[in-house]
Amino acid sequence: MLSSLFAVYPTFLVFLAVVAAMVLAMLFMPPWIRFLRSSHIGQQVRDDGPETHLKKQGTPTMGGVIMLIAVVAAVLLVGIPTFETYVLLAAILLTGALGLFDDASKIVHERSLGLTPRAKLVGQFAIATAFGIIAVNFFSIEPTVPIPFIATIDLGILTTQIPLGDGTLSLPWLYLLFVDILLVGLCNAVNLTDGLDGLAAGTVMIVMIVMAAIAYRSDLLEPAIVSAALAGACIGFLWFNAYPADIFMGDTGSLALGMGLGCLAVLTKTEFVVIIIGGLFVAEALSVIIQVFHFKRTGKRVFLMAPLHHHFEKKGWSETKVVVRFWIISGMCAAVGFSIYFAGSMMGVA
Amino acid sequence: MLSSLFAVYPTFLVFLAVVAAMVLAMLFMPPWIRFLRSSHIGQQVRDDGPETHLKKQGTPTMGGVIMLIAVVAAVLLVGIPTFETYVLLAAILLTGALGLFDDASKIVHERSLGLTPRAKLVGQFAIATAFGIIAVNFFSIEPTVPIPFIATIDLGILTTQIPLGDGTLSLPWLYLLFVDILLVGLCNAVNLTDGLDGLAAGTVMIVMIVMAAIAYRSDLLEPAIVSAALAGACIGFLWFNAYPADIFMGDTGSLALGMGLGCLAVLTKTEFVVIIIGGLFVAEALSVIIQVFHFKRTGKRVFLMAPLHHHFEKKGWSETKVVVRFWIISGMCAAVGFSIYFAGSMMGVA
Repeated sequence: MLSSLFAVYPTFLVFLAVVAAMVLAMLFMPPWIRFLRSSHIGQQVRDDGPETHLKKQGTPTMGGVIMLIAVVAAVLLVGIPTFETYVLLAAILLTGALGLFDDASKIVHERSLGLTPRAKLVGQFAIATAFGIIAVNFFSIEPTVPIPFIATIDLGILTTQIPLGDGTLSLPWLYLLFVDILLVGLCNAVNLTDGLDGLAAGTVMIVMIVMAAIAYRSDLLEPAIVSAALAGACIGFLWFNAYPADIFMGDTGSLALGMGLGCLAVLTKTEFVVIIIGGLFVAEALSVIIQVFHFKRTGKRVFLMAPLHHHFEKKGWSETKVVVRFWIISGMCAAVGFSIYFAGSMMGVA
Repeated sequence: MLSSLFAVYPTFLVFLAVVAAMVLAMLFMPPWIRFLRSSHIGQQVRDDGPETHLKKQGTPTMGGVIMLIAVVAAVLLVGIPTFETYVLLAAILLTGALGLFDDASKIVHERSLGLTPRAKLVGQFAIATAFGIIAVNFFSIEPTVPIPFIATIDLGILTTQIPLGDGTLSLPWLYLLFVDILLVGLCNAVNLTDGLDGLAAGTVMIVMIVMAAIAYRSDLLEPAIVSAALAGACIGFLWFNAYPADIFMGDTGSLALGMGLGCLAVLTKTEFVVIIIGGLFVAEALSVIIQVFHFKRTGKRVFLMAPLHHHFEKKGWSETKVVVRFWIISGMCAAVGFSIYFAGSMMGVA
């Protein structure tokens, strides 16, 4: 009987990570909201967004701070942290710090002055590159992109070996470039998705549950726990962020969640599948890119407004309907992505 | 490679049932809404509910009709229906017909005249009893209530054997009474939960996914497919039922979903665990019972308004926040219930 208890033990650790992060986020969020309100720290709503969003002006932001505290606390409480755990948490926290710096400077200066968009990107690229190098050299991550049923693309062909101590440091340039684009892309895609009450929190929660399942199935217990804690923090945050939101996650939250997703994809070798699982984030980012490029070339707009969620608001869907529908779409993307991963792994292809 | 495809095949059937029911519900709902609107068939909002709900007056109801059509079509398309499948679908459809009769008569008479509350209950009890008898005699369901880690309660002690054809018909009275209370209780609990946009659809979806997982784990593929189809129909319905709702499910939907949940609990022998998994429905029903009994005895109210979701609305939570928070609570109940079931089944206790 005891041996079967141990057999289910890891499953419960992952479940416990969800609950711990959720409960911690729920406990710490109300005092944080009170503190931000009493300090008159509120969101500056972009004046080029839908008019109906002007009422969001003044809602406290930087809820991501509590989310990240909840994630770290839950992982340290529930998991048996390894070097991998610390590197994963470091990438998430550093990206969160970058976002926090930007969130805070927006409030202090009442507009975005703290970091130029370029400086923010440089910071994200630095974190992504560092994570990629560590993943390849210390976590035996192959410099490849497996596409289930089709092929495993080898991005290790342009690799420099640098002597370091007793061994060598491997720098697979093409793979590092790919990791950079994937991680920074996901950061900004989740950031763009974070434009309606509960949208980013709900969709990231769904995606993180699937990533936890993938990590767990690959016997990567620590990444599974981090992923589960991220999902739990999203649930706890959603309690307060549901329409009408009492608090927003801010760049602190959205950039960190995007980076976390990218890093988990690298560790679980789902660098391709994550694009399907997080298909909604990709669509949101693409809508902005298409809108900008098409407008520059032709002077016409493809979408009534970008990112995508504003397009549907302009089409007459209410904010709450867009959010629930995007959750449904995100759930379908996650399910399809997981199925492809699952079938691929069962058949041992790519 | 082909053998491993077949190994994952049942998993995909269950997944496919979700998708099929969802897509069918999504396809058929818009014409149904248009038909109901053009026929001026709308909801009569109870005038003793919160004032803010008066704007819901006139929203089409009986969305459950399309949900049930989607479920039956998905199960017949995806599954390999057995006698068990047909009995399960019959119980769900008959209960839905009972609800439909009531929904329709409310509209025709512009108030509830069609069926007295007693007649409705008699109908539900008849369906529940018939299902219980068939389950025990044809599906080898033991007349027991397994409580994981504690005991398996034997409710077969008062059994009458009636000679029938070559064999006997077994009537375990205590178990049948328990099944009656459980199934009729769940019917009305889900019915009471169905008071806010998206509340019943979202919570039943969560619960049905967990029931599908339990059925699948017990090698009950057909019940798993029915459960998955019910979840899918809820998702497809939610697309339109999300706040502000374009359509309600009506008693057609809520009573049928509750009956379906109860029948699935009997087939998977989770007659006790389902009370935890569907804890939110139980809490909603209890809030009404407590409110009524306490008011009759003391003349005072325990809740600002019953069912529970109205209590929190009265406390100042907006409708959309109550719904998302109740989804979260429902998810937690489902997760805890599943964990108890899972741990119990791993250890072979009760």
